[in-house]
Amino acid sequence: MNDSRPEAAKQGSSGCVVISIDAMGGDLGPEAVIGGMARSVSDAPDIRFIVHGPQDTLQGLIDRYPELSGRCTLRHADGVVTMDDKPSQVVRNGKNTSMWSALESVRAGEAGVAVSCGNTGALMALSVIRLRRLPGINRPAIACLWPSRNPGGFNVMLDVGADVKADAEDLLQYALMGVSYARNGLGLKRPRVGLLNVGTEEHKGRAELKLANELIAAAAPDADFEHVGFVEGSDLPSDRVDVIVTDGFTGNVALKTGEGTARLVGDFLREALNSGLMARLGALLAMRALKALGARIDPRRVNGGVFLGLNGTVVKSHGASDATGVAAAIGLAYKLARSGYQERLAARVAHAAQAGQDAPADREQDGQNP
Amino acid sequence: MNDSRPEAAKQGSSGCVVISIDAMGGDLGPEAVIGGMARSVSDAPDIRFIVHGPQDTLQGLIDRYPELSGRCTLRHADGVVTMDDKPSQVVRNGKNTSMWSALESVRAGEAGVAVSCGNTGALMALSVIRLRRLPGINRPAIACLWPSRNPGGFNVMLDVGADVKADAEDLLQYALMGVSYARNGLGLKRPRVGLLNVGTEEHKGRAELKLANELIAAAAPDADFEHVGFVEGSDLPSDRVDVIVTDGFTGNVALKTGEGTARLVGDFLREALNSGLMARLGALLAMRALKALGARIDPRRVNGGVFLGLNGTVVKSHGASDATGVAAAIGLAYKLARSGYQERLAARVAHAAQAGQDAPADREQDGQNP
Repeated sequence: MNDSRPEAAKQGSSGCVVISIDAMGGDLGPEAVIGGMARSVSDAPDIRFIVHGPQDTLQGLIDRYPELSGRCTLRHADGVVTMDDKPSQVVRNGKNTSMWSALESVRAGEAGVAVSCGNTGALMALSVIRLRRLPGINRPAIACLWPSRNPGGFNVMLDVGADVKADAEDLLQYALMGVSYARNGLGLKRPRVGLLNVGTEEHKGRAELKLANELIAAAAPDADFEHVGFVEGSDLPSDRVDVIVTDGFTGNVALKTGEGTARLVGDFLREALNSGLMARLGALLAMRALKALGARIDPRRVNGGVFLGLNGTVVKSHGASDATGVAAAIGLAYKLARSGYQERLAARVAHAAQAGQDAPADREQDGQNP
Repeated sequence: MNDSRPEAAKQGSSGCVVISIDAMGGDLGPEAVIGGMARSVSDAPDIRFIVHGPQDTLQGLIDRYPELSGRCTLRHADGVVTMDDKPSQVVRNGKNTSMWSALESVRAGEAGVAVSCGNTGALMALSVIRLRRLPGINRPAIACLWPSRNPGGFNVMLDVGADVKADAEDLLQYALMGVSYARNGLGLKRPRVGLLNVGTEEHKGRAELKLANELIAAAAPDADFEHVGFVEGSDLPSDRVDVIVTDGFTGNVALKTGEGTARLVGDFLREALNSGLMARLGALLAMRALKALGARIDPRRVNGGVFLGLNGTVVKSHGASDATGVAAAIGLAYKLARSGYQERLAARVAHAAQAGQDAPADREQDGQNP
């Protein structure tokens, strides 16, 4: 394998999709990350990894999985960004960390996408500094997929935590970035965009939301999306919207509230089905259906926030991700890298942010480096 | 029955608990409200109602339920506050509405608590104007119960929508009001208070949250609660906190997100248990357990936000409440009226807001008017 050469590393002439992995900084340590890499291989035969972290530790872990043999290039990095590190410190002093190193592989064009379970604030700060914003973007955003009643099974919500603030202009940019993501990532031709508020009536909410709602409405015809107006928390899983726009504070609270609620209901269901002989027998008969349900509501399955608005794709996996969660994040990264999404998104978001337009693809970019 | 006399109307010498009901303004009309009243009677033999709205319509509905016979006093009101009415309009021109009339019964001391399914913003604005704030309170708040893993089964969250803004001082007042509610309403001696944020680390979040966290920490020893620090959306149903403090925008989004998620998971569960013969058979066997689960996660069961910080108790039922939801809100109102909670809360919140103290009850108030 020779994927340290930039030209072979991206999905390109070699036919491989290269993902840059920050192996450190997650709550469950590099074991969960390497385990997740191993799980992701079966669905992605052409996947290759550049793995960043302490060489000896990682080599030992990789050697446990025969399926990873010949797929990994190691990049030694001593330092680890912890969950307590302040983003500003990491930006100043983090050159020796696995997170920094993982982003460098994307910056250098060696890998199409970087994946990290580490400190979100630090990862975003480093991504902004090292990869830089797309032209016309003020605040990058983190987009997540949200299980919904839509035919595709998901809505997109952003921002879920890149920045605790967003003014009306930022919210407009989020709408345009979200439309591009939904169009290119979820295959929706004319996404429906809603702005998260405390009610659907036009007079409700904060002043900046009213202004943002007007800006988004005005951009809808040129950017070819449908403006739904205000949506509420109860609409997040609904089928009347595809892209939900909000500031990173509200989006982060909503995301974690939804995850926490799904987990609570799942726990209550387990208790209920263990509450007596008849219930246990019933659960046994319905086991296959219940397992399918468990997979459907498992928050790990939609693990992976995508950083939008940068020159390069970064997937943030949940800090507490286990191997299943990491595999889901890598699966998302693989899908985005394979689709040539970053190249298309970069061109379109820049265009959309400047001109309020986001035309459909006129040709398929397929395996070509830009 | 003679409960139009103020002295007999509150829980008092007559031994009755009088609830003032705004019968209009809910999405499902007065049928759902009167139906909810009828349902609530079985658990509350000493309950009486003053019912506000168009007399002829309401009398016809009440006559359908023999269990309401002799329990209701009607107060005619022509006007209805709709969901689209602006609070400022209602405050100026709403004198003839059922909502205004329902609050007047509390203001006049005829009823201990008012219940309404109507427009939240209008109800809060009218409540502030007509009942007035407790001394020392800047912004009143709406508190809701949140299903949790705590032994009592619930956490308290506030504000869930009284005001879209809250500064650090407001958040401190919410903490103190929430402590009083948890102590008097949930029976917790030393409630644990957390401030909702995007992470538990001290450096995270908006500047006003850092300040609020310091203010709440400083108030904890004197007001005799435990300061947990920052909590995240995933902690809302957790057992490491009893009172969750946040601004009304974030709290409203979180509340509706949690409700929406629980409903989605419930729908997915029904689909799963209908997905084949074995699953259907299993569901049949486990039916009793599944029904208990359904009741446990039913958002209608915890219906009823309580307005805190006013000279009088107001319970806001969900706008879309059906009879089950209305009955839950009335049940909560009944419990609060019976406990003498408003009188205790008024004294304590005023004291706490001024001195940061909230001493436990030194005597039980039991059936005495103040």
